[in-house]
Parts: sequence; structure tokens; C-alpha cells
Amino acid sequence: MARPYNFSAGPATMPEAVLQQAAAEMLDWHGTGMGVMEMSHRSTSFAAIAEQAEHDLRTLLAIPEHFKVLFSQGGALAHNAIVPMNLAGRRPERTMDFVVTGSWSQKSAQEAARYGAARIVANTADTGFTTLPDPASWRLSPDASYVHLCSNETIHGVEFHTLPDLAALGSDAPLVIDFSSHVLSRPVDWSRVGLAYGGAQKNIGPAGLTLIVVREDLLGHALPICPSVFDYRALAEAGSMLNTPPTYAIYIAGLTFQWLLAQREGNLSGVAAIEARNVAKAQRLYEAIDGSSLYINRVDPACRSRMNIPFFLRGDDGQPLRDPAHPRNAAFLRGAQARGLVQLKGHKSLGGMRASLYNAMPMAGVEALVDYMRDFERQG
Amino acid sequence: MARPYNFSAGPATMPEAVLQQAAAEMLDWHGTGMGVMEMSHRSTSFAAIAEQAEHDLRTLLAIPEHFKVLFSQGGALAHNAIVPMNLAGRRPERTMDFVVTGSWSQKSAQEAARYGAARIVANTADTGFTTLPDPASWRLSPDASYVHLCSNETIHGVEFHTLPDLAALGSDAPLVIDFSSHVLSRPVDWSRVGLAYGGAQKNIGPAGLTLIVVREDLLGHALPICPSVFDYRALAEAGSMLNTPPTYAIYIAGLTFQWLLAQREGNLSGVAAIEARNVAKAQRLYEAIDGSSLYINRVDPACRSRMNIPFFLRGDDGQPLRDPAHPRNAAFLRGAQARGLVQLKGHKSLGGMRASLYNAMPMAGVEALVDYMRDFERQG
Repeated sequence: MARPYNFSAGPATMPEAVLQQAAAEMLDWHGTGMGVMEMSHRSTSFAAIAEQAEHDLRTLLAIPEHFKVLFSQGGALAHNAIVPMNLAGRRPERTMDFVVTGSWSQKSAQEAARYGAARIVANTADTGFTTLPDPASWRLSPDASYVHLCSNETIHGVEFHTLPDLAALGSDAPLVIDFSSHVLSRPVDWSRVGLAYGGAQKNIGPAGLTLIVVREDLLGHALPICPSVFDYRALAEAGSMLNTPPTYAIYIAGLTFQWLLAQREGNLSGVAAIEARNVAKAQRLYEAIDGSSLYINRVDPACRSRMNIPFFLRGDDGQPLRDPAHPRNAAFLRGAQARGLVQLKGHKSLGGMRASLYNAMPMAGVEALVDYMRDFERQG
Repeated sequence: MARPYNFSAGPATMPEAVLQQAAAEMLDWHGTGMGVMEMSHRSTSFAAIAEQAEHDLRTLLAIPEHFKVLFSQGGALAHNAIVPMNLAGRRPERTMDFVVTGSWSQKSAQEAARYGAARIVANTADTGFTTLPDPASWRLSPDASYVHLCSNETIHGVEFHTLPDLAALGSDAPLVIDFSSHVLSRPVDWSRVGLAYGGAQKNIGPAGLTLIVVREDLLGHALPICPSVFDYRALAEAGSMLNTPPTYAIYIAGLTFQWLLAQREGNLSGVAAIEARNVAKAQRLYEAIDGSSLYINRVDPACRSRMNIPFFLRGDDGQPLRDPAHPRNAAFLRGAQARGLVQLKGHKSLGGMRASLYNAMPMAGVEALVDYMRDFERQG
């Protein structure tokens, strides 16, 4: 079958060039006669792969020297527990501040409550998670071990386009961000971040790899109940090789990093180039939605996600049709599938549709979606 | 380069047929136009892959209906913490009995001590972990939440060829086994096991996948500090999809399971066939070692591992040469490399050499190693 445009929220579409290289090297990496999956994680070949991947990631995201890059496992959901296991103990009160702006930050707060006092300092549930709260309104704790937010909510489609400056808000706590679903889609302002974590299966590639970028001074506070392989200090000291890391996933991530480094857009390259493309892609789809009378996205334009765009078809009464089984939604999804536009069904908690436009989704995919949406609307 | 024989302890050599199929399907799985790595874990395609993998694993290991099969992450080392988080709370005393027979069971006991009273009920450290303790001598606790052992010690090369019958020893505790390094190399007597866990990167394939097989009645005792993605009951209820599982690793494991099902040896098939081959491979290498005056393996023949065979070259004084930098060891490794026999250096804690003969290592690889060892001995 021809390659479809895959709008899945994750695991998600990957660059063809990455998959082609992986296929070509499957049985023989760089003349070793072995595939990467077969290599000891202690071998010089794999050490070179892991070092290059970290080096390229540092280049792409301009990660400062005083941050450690860790390759771990378990996904963001596991690290919703592992982060407090590592950071809550920074202060004896074990207070953690949570900014709740959607499903993912809500889950983070719930999970952290196992390890200390998880305080909700802002919550946009009353807007259906369609807005972001003004940082000036956050009721930050004076003694927080850290402040947590999800910088892009995959389900609700809200994104922090600027990270808060906690120091300016009078807090000396480090900011922790879950950046799973927009990592590498834009630069990160590391001066405002203490720790960033994310699963790789959205904007990097392989499920089963979890990335942690952490400021060195935050290491060393793991609670005694933290499993030793998830103690970030120990992991940092062991170069992410306390035990066997997800070697093949690291290799694929490395290929994706190289693909990203090679991206060009006008005078821009790397993450700057991909960001320009991401801005254009998102703008194209939001304009199509806003310009139609059939489709609707209810997120405040000031914080709409570039990566995950939930939208609804309207019913005859003009109201959003949540139920994916509604005949109009079912017809939309069937027609999309027939045009090779797949995985557009919204998350079950929200219903409707969702288009994820990660780095590997070309503008041509967005154009094809917009064309289809227009045709579907015309045909009624 | 020609494909070498890779004796790595893990990640380790894989069946060429599996790698070839993975390469062929990298960009288009079964006519979907998508690679497996790009598929949503909630898609029907991936659901079919995961279901088939579980089905085939159940067939291969004759796993009874009242056991759950879980696909998790973190490796055996993470589950050294996660198992006690799930099982220690079965009884209020949180007592766990550990049989220490090498590095891995020792690590398991150390890690479990974070979550309860980890008691060492037998320990073969005094023999340098070259023996297994007679179960009749184990000082089992009357109130243990479980009894733990490592059924194959990857570093020290000792293997339980029969699992203990705890009931016959007067204990009603379930037996927990870490079977990482010999899973699928032989059948498992499930009547004697409550929970088995292991990393996939030795006998199955991809690092980053951890397998858990657990009797249903042991679920539901997770401690409050157990991260929700590692609560085995919740994982079982969610069909291993509480969050995004390591999808590509599950796919590769599934290909390996199909390869195993297709193995034939005389009248035998599947695990019985591979076991016969594993017995023959190990016997060939142990005979070569025992029949030489240069090489020595010090493990009690009654419990020698079929999978991981540590051995030493002797010095001029007849004593084992531990230091890998010793000229004789260095010459041995150089010569092996030149013949395409790689990853023979022993684990750093033991020194000397180690040959891992997992399922995917053909008899031809063992023959090549034995021939080389003989030639090296003759040349002095």
C-alpha cells in the first residue's frame, strides 16, 4: 500500500529516511557484520552510537553543560512517579506544586501524591482545559521541592509557547516539564528549566525510550524507596548504563537526531528549521478549521498546540459531535481512511478528531488533510 | 564483514531470519504502508501483533490459563524493585526469602531490602558461587511473602536444572524466579512458580522489553509507593497497555517466538527442540574445556549453565588468569576476534572468558569456538 499520512498521537509517523537507514543496517551496522539490536551495550560500537546520540541531542536542543542527559525507560507515566522519587526529597516537607492544564499534568499530580504533598497551584479544568492559566495567578508554595507542568498537552491540545520564569514569580523552586509530545519541535529555554522528561514515541520515534534532561544540582535527593535503576544521580554517573538500556531505541533516536540536524528551511537548520515548518503546518490546519463552519477547535488561540490539534465536526445544531460513532464522524473517518489519512480519531476522553503534526509529518500531509476536510464539508 | 559468532551475554546474537524479516517489514508491515514503529499501540494492527506474541509465548512455554503474561519495561534490575513493590505486601511482615547464588540474586536481595525484610536463606558465596545450595538446607521463613531465586546466573554460570518444590519443603510462599538469561531455552515447571520475570535482551532479542509471567492470585498487593504503571494487577487488567508499551520490542519478540515455534530437532519442535540443541551445544563446549589442560570452568557439573559458560585460561602456574589484560588472555581474545568469534571477554567482576550460547547461537558457532580453543592451546 502507498504510505499513508499517519496523524497518530504516538507512536507516530517517522521520517522515511530514518526507517530506510534502519532497514539497510538491520543485519550489518557499519561493517561489523552485526545488527545494532545484537550488540552488547558495553561494546565499543554501541558506546559510539549512544555517545553520538547524546552529542547530537545536546546540539539540537542547545543543552548546557551543567545538565545531564539520561536515557531511561518506562515512559512519561512511569517518570510521573520517578521524578518525585528523585526530587520530592529536596526539602523535608516534600511539597510539589502542580499546574494542571489537561489530562497529562493531572495524571502527574495524582501520581506524585504517592510521594509527598502534591499541591494544585493552578487548574484550568473549568475551561475544559482550553486555556492556560496566567503564571501571575499561580499560588506557588514557598517551600516547594519543584513546580511541575506539562508543556504540551497531547490530548487537550494546549501548549506553553513561553515557559514561566519562576524566579520572577518569587519562587526558587526548579521547574519540571513533561515535554513528551513536543520535544525537539522547538527550542527549550533551559534558563527556566530544572528537569525535562518525555517519552520518545511521539517526536523522536521508538516507544520504550524515555529522555530526561536534568540540571546537575538537582541530583542526589532520591528517596530510599526509589528503585536503584531509576535514581537519576546513579543513572547519570553510569552514563545511562546502570543496566542494559533500550539499545535499539537509542539507535533509532540517534538516526532521528541526525535527520533533524540535516533539516533546512531558508537560512534555518536543525530545530529552528523544523520549528518554522511546524508553525506553518499548524497555522495551515488551524486556519482551515477556523475558516470553516463545519469544524471547530475550542482552544484559546494564544495557547494552541502546534503538535496536537483536537477538533470536532459540528452537528446540525451547531454543537460539537463528540461521539466517534456518530454517523457524521464515522463518515469523516471512513473518507479520510480512503484517502490515506489515518489515525484521526480523537482521544476517547475527548471524542471528536485529533490531528498530530509531529516533526516527521510533512506539509504535504497537512495539505492533504485540509483538502479532504474542505471536500467533506462541501459534500455535506 | 562476514557475520561473526557473537558470544555476548546480552544484548546478544539473534536469528538472522528474524532480522531479515524485520528489515523487510521496516517501512510496510503487512501492506499497511506503515512500519511497526510508527503504529499507535491502540491500532488494530499493533493489537494483533501483541496478541499473537502473547499467544505464541504461551504456546512455547505452556503457560497455564491462571497466569498473566505482562510486557513491561526497565529490565530485570528495575523489576528487582518492582517485584517486592508488588508482592512484599502479601503479608504484613513484608518478609522475603532470597537464595543467593551469584551476582544477580545478590542484587535482587539488596534491592528488595528497600521494601521489606529481605532474608538470605541460602548463600553460596563461600564456594565463589560455583555450586547451588541443597533446598533441604534453606532456612525458609514461615511468614515469607515470597521466595526468590535467579534460575540462571548470567555472570557465574550456574543454573537450576530443577526448580525447588517449596510446598514439599514446608513453605506455602510462592516462588519468584529471575529467568532473564535462560527464558525459552527450556520448559518451565509452572506448578512450582508463582512469578517469573526477565529482560528480553538475552534469549528473546530486543533490550527494553521485560517479561513478567505471574499467577493471578498474587496480583493486587502492590504497596502504595508502587508507580501505577508498575502495578502488575493494573498492568494485567490493561493488557500491558496502561501506557505506551515498547511496541517495536514486542514485535521483534513476536518474530523470535515464531522462529522458535518453527524449530525442529528430530521429533521435537519449539522449546523442546531448542532445548535439545542447547544441551548439545553446552556439552560440546564443557567437554572441550574439561578435556584441555589450558582451560578451566570451576562450576559444579551438577549446576553448570547451558547458556552462560565462564572459563579461564591457566597461567604457567596452573592457576586461572583473571586479568583480561594478561598477555595470554589478550592473545586469546585477539585470535578469537580474527576468526570472527567476538564478545568472549568475561564479566569484569569475574575476569577470564565467558561464552554465552543462547538459542540463536548455532552449533556451528560452538564448533568454531572449540576449534579455535584447541588451536590456541596447541600453539601455546
